[in-house]
Amino acid sequence: MKRKNRIVVVGGSAAGPKAAAKARRMDSEAEVILIQKDPELSMASCGYPYYVGGFFDDRNMLLSTPTGVTRDPVFYMNAKAIEARTSTEVTRIDSAAHTLDYRNLLTQEEGSLEYDKLILATGAVPRMPPVPGTDLKGITTLQSMRDADYLRKVRDEGIIKKAVVVGGGLIGIETCEALHLAGIQITVVELLPQLLTFLDWQLAKLVENHVKSKGADVITGSRVAAFLGEDGRLAGVKLDSGTELPCELAVIAVGVIPNVRLARDTGVTIGETGGITVNEYLQTSDPDIYAVGDCIETVNRITGRKVLAPYGDLANLQGRVAGENAASDNTITFPGTIQTGICKVFDFSAGSTGLSEHAARNLGYEDIVSVVNASPDKPGFMNGQLLITKMVADRKSGKILGAQCVGPGNVGKQVAQWAMAIQGDLTVEDLVNSDLPYAPPFSLAIDHFIATAHIMQNKLKGRLKGISAVDVKAKLDNRETPFFLDVREPEEFEETRLGIGETLMPPGALRKRLDELPQDKNREIICYCKVSLRGYEAALVLEANGWRNVRVMEGGIMAWPYPKEK
Amino acid sequence: MKRKNRIVVVGGSAAGPKAAAKARRMDSEAEVILIQKDPELSMASCGYPYYVGGFFDDRNMLLSTPTGVTRDPVFYMNAKAIEARTSTEVTRIDSAAHTLDYRNLLTQEEGSLEYDKLILATGAVPRMPPVPGTDLKGITTLQSMRDADYLRKVRDEGIIKKAVVVGGGLIGIETCEALHLAGIQITVVELLPQLLTFLDWQLAKLVENHVKSKGADVITGSRVAAFLGEDGRLAGVKLDSGTELPCELAVIAVGVIPNVRLARDTGVTIGETGGITVNEYLQTSDPDIYAVGDCIETVNRITGRKVLAPYGDLANLQGRVAGENAASDNTITFPGTIQTGICKVFDFSAGSTGLSEHAARNLGYEDIVSVVNASPDKPGFMNGQLLITKMVADRKSGKILGAQCVGPGNVGKQVAQWAMAIQGDLTVEDLVNSDLPYAPPFSLAIDHFIATAHIMQNKLKGRLKGISAVDVKAKLDNRETPFFLDVREPEEFEETRLGIGETLMPPGALRKRLDELPQDKNREIICYCKVSLRGYEAALVLEANGWRNVRVMEGGIMAWPYPKEK
Repeated sequence: MKRKNRIVVVGGSAAGPKAAAKARRMDSEAEVILIQKDPELSMASCGYPYYVGGFFDDRNMLLSTPTGVTRDPVFYMNAKAIEARTSTEVTRIDSAAHTLDYRNLLTQEEGSLEYDKLILATGAVPRMPPVPGTDLKGITTLQSMRDADYLRKVRDEGIIKKAVVVGGGLIGIETCEALHLAGIQITVVELLPQLLTFLDWQLAKLVENHVKSKGADVITGSRVAAFLGEDGRLAGVKLDSGTELPCELAVIAVGVIPNVRLARDTGVTIGETGGITVNEYLQTSDPDIYAVGDCIETVNRITGRKVLAPYGDLANLQGRVAGENAASDNTITFPGTIQTGICKVFDFSAGSTGLSEHAARNLGYEDIVSVVNASPDKPGFMNGQLLITKMVADRKSGKILGAQCVGPGNVGKQVAQWAMAIQGDLTVEDLVNSDLPYAPPFSLAIDHFIATAHIMQNKLKGRLKGISAVDVKAKLDNRETPFFLDVREPEEFEETRLGIGETLMPPGALRKRLDELPQDKNREIICYCKVSLRGYEAALVLEANGWRNVRVMEGGIMAWPYPKEK
Repeated sequence: MKRKNRIVVVGGSAAGPKAAAKARRMDSEAEVILIQKDPELSMASCGYPYYVGGFFDDRNMLLSTPTGVTRDPVFYMNAKAIEARTSTEVTRIDSAAHTLDYRNLLTQEEGSLEYDKLILATGAVPRMPPVPGTDLKGITTLQSMRDADYLRKVRDEGIIKKAVVVGGGLIGIETCEALHLAGIQITVVELLPQLLTFLDWQLAKLVENHVKSKGADVITGSRVAAFLGEDGRLAGVKLDSGTELPCELAVIAVGVIPNVRLARDTGVTIGETGGITVNEYLQTSDPDIYAVGDCIETVNRITGRKVLAPYGDLANLQGRVAGENAASDNTITFPGTIQTGICKVFDFSAGSTGLSEHAARNLGYEDIVSVVNASPDKPGFMNGQLLITKMVADRKSGKILGAQCVGPGNVGKQVAQWAMAIQGDLTVEDLVNSDLPYAPPFSLAIDHFIATAHIMQNKLKGRLKGISAVDVKAKLDNRETPFFLDVREPEEFEETRLGIGETLMPPGALRKRLDELPQDKNREIICYCKVSLRGYEAALVLEANGWRNVRVMEGGIMAWPYPKEK
C-alpha cells in the first residue's frame, strides 16, 4: 500500500503552524508533520513585549487558543490531526531523495523522514553587533519564549535598575516601553540618526520626543563599541563616542537575519537580500519545497523589488498560501507586501505603509511630492487626539507611494486606510472624496485621511506652497531670514510658541494688519498655526494681496520636532 | 466699475459654510455671502446627541473652531472674508434675473441680492409621522440647535422620567443612548421589523439585544397611531397594536426629507428621490445654481442609482467641490457615495458600507454570497473585543458589494477598511492577502477583515458550506431536525449554550467520537462553536469521514441573535 501524501513543515512559530493547519484543511488524507526546534509551538511572539511589560500576567495566553487550550502536540494531534514534534531540529534535507534528518534535542535521538512536500518556516535569527562582550550575562534579545521569560523575570524581581536597549526599531521601542513600565531606567542606543526607520526623520523625531517625555533616554547616531563586563556579568555599554552607559541589562534589537542555513545546505536558491527566493506560489527553486515567513524574501508590490519583510501578519498569510499550495496543485498566489507596520510607543502609535520619502528617493523615485498634515482624529468635544501624517505621492500619476502616521490618536485606523488605498491603486484624486464611516465618536466630518489627501491635492495643483519643518530649520541654521507669521490666537501663543523670530497675527486680524508685514512683496513669508490650516488660509490672503513668496509650514507647531521657546 | 463676482450660499450648517470657505480660498476677489436661516452657523449637528447625553457640557464646542473661536458672522468676516447673514431666510430666487429675495427673521427687514453663482445648501427637514398629536408640548426632533438645547435642558432638569423615541435609525439610536444616560427610561418604537436598516436583520437584532441589555426597551414592527395629550402636553404614545406607552417626552427620528422648496419654486429639477438633481460638478439644472448636502440626491457608486445620502461627511465633501466649481469653471467632480455610515450604540458600534444583503436583493442582485464572521479585534491578552461582520459579495466577479460590522470592538476601523476596499474596486481574491498594520495592541495577526475575506473565499470555492443563524432558526421553527454539533470545550458549554438539542463534542475529542454522530451519512449536521472557526474545522473532519450534508453556522454562538438556553 502506498504511503499517504506527506507534508512536512519545518518551523513551528507563526508561518509553520498556519501552513500545517491549512494543508490539513485542504487535504484530510495527507499526513501533516510539524517539526519545531523550540519546546513551544505557535507562540504569539509579537506579544512578548506586552507580557514583559505586564499588560498581562498569564504566560499561557501566549501559547493557547482564545479559549485557553494550550497549543501543544496533544492539541495539534487531537484537534487538527497534525503530528507536531517539538524540541526537534531538522539537521539535513536530501531534496533528491525527498528525505530529511532530524535530532530530538532532549533525547538526542536521531531519525530520518520521507516527505512529498516540504514547507520551510525556519524564521529569522537576531542580528548581533560585531563587538566584544556579547556573551556576557545580562545581554539578551527578545526573540524567543525563553527571552521573554528572562525579561519577565527581570521585571518581576525588580532588582535591575538600568538597562540599555540596542536598536531603535519596532522591537527596540516595544522593549523600551516594556522595561520602562517595569520601573527600569532605559537608554535606547540607535546607530542611525533616528528611531523607527520606516518613518521619515521628522516623524521619527516626534516619536523620539515622546519617548523622552516619558523619561526614557534615546541616543541616536551612535554605535555600540563594546559591552563591558565584571565577573562575566554586564556592567555597561560603551559607545563609539567613548561614552559609557552603566547598566545591568542590555537588550539587543538591531534586526533579524533570515535563518536560511538549512535551505542553503539543501541547495535551494537564496536571494540577494539574504532570504530564500520563492515564486508567487511560495515555492523555492525546488518545486517540492515551499518557504514562508521571516526566512524568505518577498516582493514589494509598489517597487517590484525583492525585500525582507519579517512581519507576523505576513507570516500567517504566507503560511496559509503555502499550506494550500503544498496540499493542492499551486491554486493560490501570494502577491507580496506593501510593508505595512505599526507599533505602540507609550501613549503614541507609529505606523507606516508603502514607501517613506527617504525610501522612495533611495529607490530612484524623483518626481515625488510629500505633505505633512496634523489634525485630531475626532472632534474636540469627543476628546479627539492628535494625528500627524506624512503622505508621499508620485507627482505625475498622483499615485500614493506611501503614508506614515504618528501620534496619540487612532493611528491604526489611518494606516489601515492608507494600506487599502495603496492596494486599490488609488490616486490622490480618488481619495479626496472618500466615503468613510463618520460620526463624532469615530472621526472628524472630514477625516484626517481625507484632509491629508486634500492638502496633497492643493499642493499638486500648486495652490498650497508648503515647506517642511525640516526645511524651515535648515533656513534658520543657514541664517536665512524669512518672515515668520504665526496665525494663532494670543492665548495659544502664550501657551506654546516656536521662538524663531515669528510675528503673531491672529487670523481675524490679518486682513487689517497687512501693513505690518514686510512691504517687499518678494520677501519670503512662512505662515503657520497649530496645524497650519489657518496658516494655509493666511497664505492665500497674502498671495491675494500681492505677496509672491509665501509658504505654509506643513503640520504647523504640532509637527515641529525641534525644541520650542515655550 | 463692474461689481465683483458674487457667490451666494444659501444654508449655513455643514455643506454651506464649507462651500463658502472653499469658494473664498479659490477666488480671493469674489464676494462670498452666506445666508443662514438659523441664528447659528456651522453647527456640529452630528454632535447634538453627545451634548444631550452629557459627553461634554460646553455648548459652545458645537459652534466654535478647535481653538475655541465661535463661528459667528464676525469670525466669518474677519477670518475668512465671508459675509454671513444669520436669522435670514431666502424667500425667492429669480434665476433668470440672477437675484434672490431674503427676509431677516428678527427684524423682518426684506431685501434683494444679485448673484453670479448660487449654491443651495438648504438641508433637510425632519419627517413627521402623519398621526394626531404631533403638536403637543413634549414632542421634539433632534435636528436643530434649539432641539439640542431643549433636550439638554430635559437632561439637566432631571424631571422627565419616561420618553419614547420614535424611529430606530442612526439618530433614534443615538438619542436613545443620550436620554438613557440622562437617567430617562426609554422605549424605542420602530415601524420596521428591525433597528438600523443599513444592517441586515441578524446584525440589527444583535444591536437591539445590546440596547435592551442596557435597560432601554425596543419595540419593532410597530406603528405610532397617535400622540396622547393632557392639557396640551404629551402624556403618552399610542401604538397601532393598541398599546399605550405613558411618557412625558417623545423624540421623533423617522428620517429626513430634502428641503427643496426654494429649489422647486426656482424651477430647478428635483429628482425622483425627492432631492435636487445635480450633475457630477454638483450643478443643478440651472448651470449657475449648485446644490450640496442633505437637499440633493447623489449617485450610489456601486449601483449607479440616484439615492439620498444625508450624511455630514458627504455634505462637507460636496461643499468643497461646489465651492471650487462655483469659483472656478467646474474643475472638480463629486463621484457619489457608497453609503458608508456608523453609529455608537452604548458599548457597541454599528457601521456599514456598500449594500446590505437585503438592499442588494431588493436592487435585483441575484447571484450574491454573504458570510458572517465573528472574532475579536485584538488578541485576548490585549483585551480584544468582539467584532461581528457580514460581508456581501457578487459571486461571479468576487466584487465586494458591501460589509456591515457590529460589536464592542473597533468597528470604525473595520468599516473604514471595507470602504476603501470598495472604492478600490477590490475583489475577495485581492483582500485575502491584504497587508494591514499588525501589532498586538492593534489587531490580530490575521485581522478580522482579512479573516472575513478568507471565509468568503472558502465559501466561494465551495470549501465552506455555511448556514446563517437565521436559516438555522427557520429550520427549528419548521420542525426540521438537523443534528447540531457544538464543538466547544465543556467549560464554555457550561457558561453559555443555545439549547437547540445540540450535542457537545470538544474539537480534541471529535475524531475519536465519530461513532456518536448520526450514522446516516446523508443526515444534515450543523456544526458551530463560539465563532465557528472550530465549527469549520469540525465540518471538514466530518466531510473527510464521509458525511455529505454538513454545514457550519456562520459566526457561531456570538452571532446568534435569538434567546439562548443559558
